[in-house]
Amino acid sequence: MAETASPRRATRGGGGAARRAARTAVVHDVAPVIARNIPDHAVLTDEALEIIEANAETVLAEIGVSFVDNPAALARWRDAGADVQGDRVLIPRGLARKLCATAPARFTQIARTPERSVEIGGRNLVLAPVYGPPFVRDAAGGRRYATMEDFSNFVKLGQMSRWLHHSGGTVCEPTDVPVNKRHLDMLLAHATLSDKPFMGSVTDPARAADSVAMAEILFGGLEGRCALTSLININSPLTFDAVMMGALEVYAAAGQACILSPFIVGGAMAPVTVAGTLTQVLAEVMAGVAYAQLIRPGAPVIFGAFVTSIDMNSGAPTFGTPEAALITLGAGQLARRMGLPYRSGGAFCGSKLPDAQAGYESANSLNVALLAGVNFMLHAAGWLE
Amino acid sequence: MAETASPRRATRGGGGAARRAARTAVVHDVAPVIARNIPDHAVLTDEALEIIEANAETVLAEIGVSFVDNPAALARWRDAGADVQGDRVLIPRGLARKLCATAPARFTQIARTPERSVEIGGRNLVLAPVYGPPFVRDAAGGRRYATMEDFSNFVKLGQMSRWLHHSGGTVCEPTDVPVNKRHLDMLLAHATLSDKPFMGSVTDPARAADSVAMAEILFGGLEGRCALTSLININSPLTFDAVMMGALEVYAAAGQACILSPFIVGGAMAPVTVAGTLTQVLAEVMAGVAYAQLIRPGAPVIFGAFVTSIDMNSGAPTFGTPEAALITLGAGQLARRMGLPYRSGGAFCGSKLPDAQAGYESANSLNVALLAGVNFMLHAAGWLE
Repeated sequence: MAETASPRRATRGGGGAARRAARTAVVHDVAPVIARNIPDHAVLTDEALEIIEANAETVLAEIGVSFVDNPAALARWRDAGADVQGDRVLIPRGLARKLCATAPARFTQIARTPERSVEIGGRNLVLAPVYGPPFVRDAAGGRRYATMEDFSNFVKLGQMSRWLHHSGGTVCEPTDVPVNKRHLDMLLAHATLSDKPFMGSVTDPARAADSVAMAEILFGGLEGRCALTSLININSPLTFDAVMMGALEVYAAAGQACILSPFIVGGAMAPVTVAGTLTQVLAEVMAGVAYAQLIRPGAPVIFGAFVTSIDMNSGAPTFGTPEAALITLGAGQLARRMGLPYRSGGAFCGSKLPDAQAGYESANSLNVALLAGVNFMLHAAGWLE
Repeated sequence: MAETASPRRATRGGGGAARRAARTAVVHDVAPVIARNIPDHAVLTDEALEIIEANAETVLAEIGVSFVDNPAALARWRDAGADVQGDRVLIPRGLARKLCATAPARFTQIARTPERSVEIGGRNLVLAPVYGPPFVRDAAGGRRYATMEDFSNFVKLGQMSRWLHHSGGTVCEPTDVPVNKRHLDMLLAHATLSDKPFMGSVTDPARAADSVAMAEILFGGLEGRCALTSLININSPLTFDAVMMGALEVYAAAGQACILSPFIVGGAMAPVTVAGTLTQVLAEVMAGVAYAQLIRPGAPVIFGAFVTSIDMNSGAPTFGTPEAALITLGAGQLARRMGLPYRSGGAFCGSKLPDAQAGYESANSLNVALLAGVNFMLHAAGWLE
């Protein structure tokens, strides 16, 4: 697709034909980050939020969180005043929240083209493409494992979209490149085929370091600037594995942003109830954000919530359900009370095809996320399976 | 389909097999009317609402509304203090709102089976099926004009649904019965094939009178009881035709409920802006409700808003759009400030088939209606075209 300047005529006249030409010309721009002017929807009362917050402190103090295979993390927690038993960190009431206080309420992620830098937090909404699909589908090949060529094409599609503010990260998993150097090709594609902000690798601490090094080359140093926002999933319930935490340590030390996202299928790795799941989400995010602040006070972070519910008959994850909606709305309230940017939502569905089920489940998820005050939305342009 | 009592075993034991049997048995019940426990979503500030209300008074006072081919209505308005010029009624500031004050904030519509009576208003949500489709579609015949057999089948399907509280009205248009007696067959079907509340005919004042007469037979008199809730569309902009108003006069005089629903495609019969359309909706509803109260103070009414937006390129109506969402939310706020039950929403879509477009547009409409505080929702179980 060619990029064509909009044919604005300085001469008089033209009328319909000129307007049609202007309307149909390919204009390669990006809509501004959405600045919400509608209220966030509050499903929980202050009293309910206070109960959840008090219970999250109880979870952290009495059950604790596990930092597995990560002695340095345990030492940091012990030095900060936590009670470390084996790989379990019991965080006294109030400590996690106190540590979280140094995290910024909003931050700017820079882009190669300065006008495409995004401010994440406040009333802003930044839209990013899908993250993580191993499979792609096209008219010729049907459903198949993704390749690096697919990855590059998705980055280009994201770059062409007026509505995506962000190039995302793993827009698909390019399985034809060996895992140990795949991240280099992925980052190169984001850096060269898009001028929007993008995400770093989290599959190994060394790959996170490579991501930072590549961003330093691209931007000529990063001190005081955030060029990467990366997705740190928490192994719910209450487990922080060494791979993800190793990546977080690299990013936080370099002042780069991390999204602390409990990955929760309610009923499987969290209670079936909305209140119980929200309590667990809050405990996990507080522990993760606090740890990032132990690495470097002031490191930018995002309160993440990726929550679905389980079909209790079949065990299948479901999307677009009322429970997930209530959790998305409630987690937004909890994030705002912590003064943190919020990541959730996306066009989720449980369908395998772009059918009616995909349509209504995606719309359910999107509508709720728009009202929940989400600041950074992955999967905004849809996902399947 | 046979109605089977749920096999509840008084004996001990049973376990999985008994639970499976209980789960799969056909239980012919209806879920209670939804009593909302989440807040309504307010998109407009008090200041914005006050501006819209002031401008609606200006519309009524300076532009007025037309009651066409209806000299008795003009006489009623003149007696009430309006300035009648031709068939145009200029309603002085404050008069319409004052007349509306006698309308009840909530009312009960009785059903043949008393437990299926519904209370419309407050925080309740009553779900009703689609209204008005001329076409039906089945595997054997494809898309075709609907018949009385189809109508009866849809009434039976509504009766079987646990999630529909109301039998609705024109669940399809039975085109094989002559128009002048079609309403009799339709009402008979609702009265005999369902025990849920239903709607009356509005296609002629005489047919409204027939509807009331049939309800009187069914319920043994109606004095002080509402047995019919009927759909009075306003011919936007600002026109009240004699057919619909004649039906309203019959129903209001008999103490039966009317939904005053401006039928608006924003950009076609109302301004393109959300604020402008809301102003017109409010003016039309106030005039209609006020007129019902002129007929009989205290007659039950519902503030209706059926609003879509137009595709300004093609002229096609669209559904599930942001403008319609904002209008649905804003009209709910206006209805609550008037202290009236609110009808809006439904699973609207612009698609011709149950595809992804139908899915996401329907979900967009439904999600917004759920948050807008709708009390009576037609089209709740979906529509096409």
